[in-house]
Amino acid sequence: MEERTLATVRSLIAARDWNELRSAITRLPLPDIAEMLADAGKADRALIYRTLPTELAADVAAYLDPDELHSLIQDLREPEARHLLSNLSPDDRTYFLGELPGQVTQRLLNLLGHEDLKEARGLLGYSEQSVGRMMTPDYIAVRPSWTVEQVLAHIRRRGSDSETISTLYVTDDGWKLLGVLDLRRVLLAEPAATVTEVMAHRAVRVEASDDREHALAVMQRHDLHALPVVDSHGVLLGIVTSDDMLDVAQTEATEDFHRTAAVSPIAGRYTEAGVKQLVAKRLGWLLGLILVNLMSSGVIAVFEETLSATIALVFFMPLLIDSGGNIGSQAATMMIRGIVTGDLRLSQWARTLAKEAVVGGALGLAMGAAAGLLGLYRGGYALALVVGLSMALLAVTANLVGAILPFVFTRIRVDPAVASSPLITTVADTLGLLIYFTVARYILG
Amino acid sequence: MEERTLATVRSLIAARDWNELRSAITRLPLPDIAEMLADAGKADRALIYRTLPTELAADVAAYLDPDELHSLIQDLREPEARHLLSNLSPDDRTYFLGELPGQVTQRLLNLLGHEDLKEARGLLGYSEQSVGRMMTPDYIAVRPSWTVEQVLAHIRRRGSDSETISTLYVTDDGWKLLGVLDLRRVLLAEPAATVTEVMAHRAVRVEASDDREHALAVMQRHDLHALPVVDSHGVLLGIVTSDDMLDVAQTEATEDFHRTAAVSPIAGRYTEAGVKQLVAKRLGWLLGLILVNLMSSGVIAVFEETLSATIALVFFMPLLIDSGGNIGSQAATMMIRGIVTGDLRLSQWARTLAKEAVVGGALGLAMGAAAGLLGLYRGGYALALVVGLSMALLAVTANLVGAILPFVFTRIRVDPAVASSPLITTVADTLGLLIYFTVARYILG
Repeated sequence: MEERTLATVRSLIAARDWNELRSAITRLPLPDIAEMLADAGKADRALIYRTLPTELAADVAAYLDPDELHSLIQDLREPEARHLLSNLSPDDRTYFLGELPGQVTQRLLNLLGHEDLKEARGLLGYSEQSVGRMMTPDYIAVRPSWTVEQVLAHIRRRGSDSETISTLYVTDDGWKLLGVLDLRRVLLAEPAATVTEVMAHRAVRVEASDDREHALAVMQRHDLHALPVVDSHGVLLGIVTSDDMLDVAQTEATEDFHRTAAVSPIAGRYTEAGVKQLVAKRLGWLLGLILVNLMSSGVIAVFEETLSATIALVFFMPLLIDSGGNIGSQAATMMIRGIVTGDLRLSQWARTLAKEAVVGGALGLAMGAAAGLLGLYRGGYALALVVGLSMALLAVTANLVGAILPFVFTRIRVDPAVASSPLITTVADTLGLLIYFTVARYILG
Repeated sequence: MEERTLATVRSLIAARDWNELRSAITRLPLPDIAEMLADAGKADRALIYRTLPTELAADVAAYLDPDELHSLIQDLREPEARHLLSNLSPDDRTYFLGELPGQVTQRLLNLLGHEDLKEARGLLGYSEQSVGRMMTPDYIAVRPSWTVEQVLAHIRRRGSDSETISTLYVTDDGWKLLGVLDLRRVLLAEPAATVTEVMAHRAVRVEASDDREHALAVMQRHDLHALPVVDSHGVLLGIVTSDDMLDVAQTEATEDFHRTAAVSPIAGRYTEAGVKQLVAKRLGWLLGLILVNLMSSGVIAVFEETLSATIALVFFMPLLIDSGGNIGSQAATMMIRGIVTGDLRLSQWARTLAKEAVVGGALGLAMGAAAGLLGLYRGGYALALVVGLSMALLAVTANLVGAILPFVFTRIRVDPAVASSPLITTVADTLGLLIYFTVARYILG
């Protein structure tokens, strides 16, 4: 059914039949309407938006990307833009305003009423990676002395604006967080019971200045739908909800993916990034890695004589270089992910390295045997011994380097993902050549 | 305060003072109690568990890893084990039972009562990556004809078992999902209003056989806290909640991280994986990549003459090999992540490749210039030209290969993350050497 509605709406837009569209479009889920707004030409966007019922319009707009939303607002008349902005939920509004250039943000802030303006200014004041930046002040707070009946009446008054009503927050008169109240318990309790009697006198919480990754970890650890955010005195400032956290988890994972491939994190999505931004995020790392690579050339220079004497050694250079890089990348990626997800703690470094030494040894035996066979085929026993032994030694070494670097970076408070596959590969190369030529010189004389 | 309690509890365990422990331990958050159980020696684990109030025990156990929980259950007496298992929530129980060896699962299933057993068997029947495997049948369903008053009475009866009460599910007598009902609307409505009047006559849903990654995408797109799961006839089977989805997002990201480093996904966490498993997940890829690497040796063999004539060419082999791999890995990782998160659709391949051609060109200019300078320093103008030109051509080529492979894999229904950095690096090497030696032969003669 939905597929059919989608097709109908598309054809109505194509036919620019705004009246029919008005009744058809509201049968679609909000994200689909938003996608249609985003895909529509600049000329039609404001027209389609105006067909939406007033109470739905801001909800739909909340699903647009900041750029798309901004472009829509530019096409609206001032009262319409004012209405849209004031009806966005505070967390969505902060995200939107925070992604725009400073000047644009200022101009849009001027469209807000006094209360909303104060709130938006406050939220935008938190640093971009902090919990404060993504919290919403739309929660329901109750007082410990209230009765269950009063709580229910309060929910009826305030509930429609709140991001969640499954959990209510109990504060004292100074808004200090005292505990939480599960709505379930309210519904199950006697009307005359007080909040103190049914609340949980403790609440897992985070501070507004905390990193949002910390909030994510706390939410996961405690399996929470919503997490209260307090200031340093324990005063309740807002809440963050698990659906927003899903976005955080996704964004943080993307940043880590990019970092492990030596790409500086891109703000926003790949499809929205321009060529200039993409080049800027990649070139620095690539040029830096060229410098690291000079070590490899240095090793070759030192062993030039060995190399000229046995040109067959050159054949196995790519094999050794690549295998070392691959083994190191595998180890590094597993460490990085373990550290980021909290599975591996810094204190476990010794135990982990011991484990990886054994793993590297096993990989080295198998890889050495395989490389030795190739060497035998290409150049006889001596070369087989050189290539096989080098590969085995390299496997152990590269594996340890890949395993240790993420711990080292974490220790010196650098993101462990900086131990990217390209960096590990480049470092492992130098090691590989060093081992290879040393073994060759020793065995081949 | 919590820190102090934690220290107290630890010292009480050390002193084996179970009576004092009983009153102190309940002041801790559940995940902390679980961690303490996990960290305790095998001898103490059951004893600590027995200090927990009955109504809390299963909730704490739900935070344990499957292995830890299994070891605890083995130490309990049969009635205790039976009580624990029946009081786990169905989704937690399915996860636990699904992670154990088949025989153990069977033995534990025998501890369940008839109803729980039927439910557990049903849930375990879904494939491991499916939504069915992680859903819970603990939701609240209401009928369209009920009044708001009846709904509230129903919640009071059933609410304490339900995973969420913020959303109620409206079904017909055959349990077919008709729509959803926001608890907010129930609380705000007149007691005599019927469900039909206040419900949303539409519900975003997934099928039990759908992949859990699909459910994750749907939940993110619609910003939902809970998502109903139906069978192919639209009959409501259960729900999945966003806190469980956070775990899915984390697990899926970890699997992708491992794949992009050419490590087959490890079931469970790194710290729990044994050496044998770690080697098994890595060695196959490494040996396979050795085979791919034979192409590089082949290229060197073909150009042996060129190489012997100008041994200086060897110096820049690691530089070209590495840079090509790095550029290709960057591009591939960005494509993979874009495809996985839904930012990049398969249909956008042409536009994306065009964009990456430009990016590769820009990177090629900069990298070519840098490499050319190194060539000049090392061997004069001719070598500078060879190295610089090769690097520029390689940058464009490797970038396109890295960008196109994830699309190709997706097209042939292989996980795009199989276009791992090691694979791209190894393929880019062969290309790099081919370009390098061809350019060298042409320019140096």
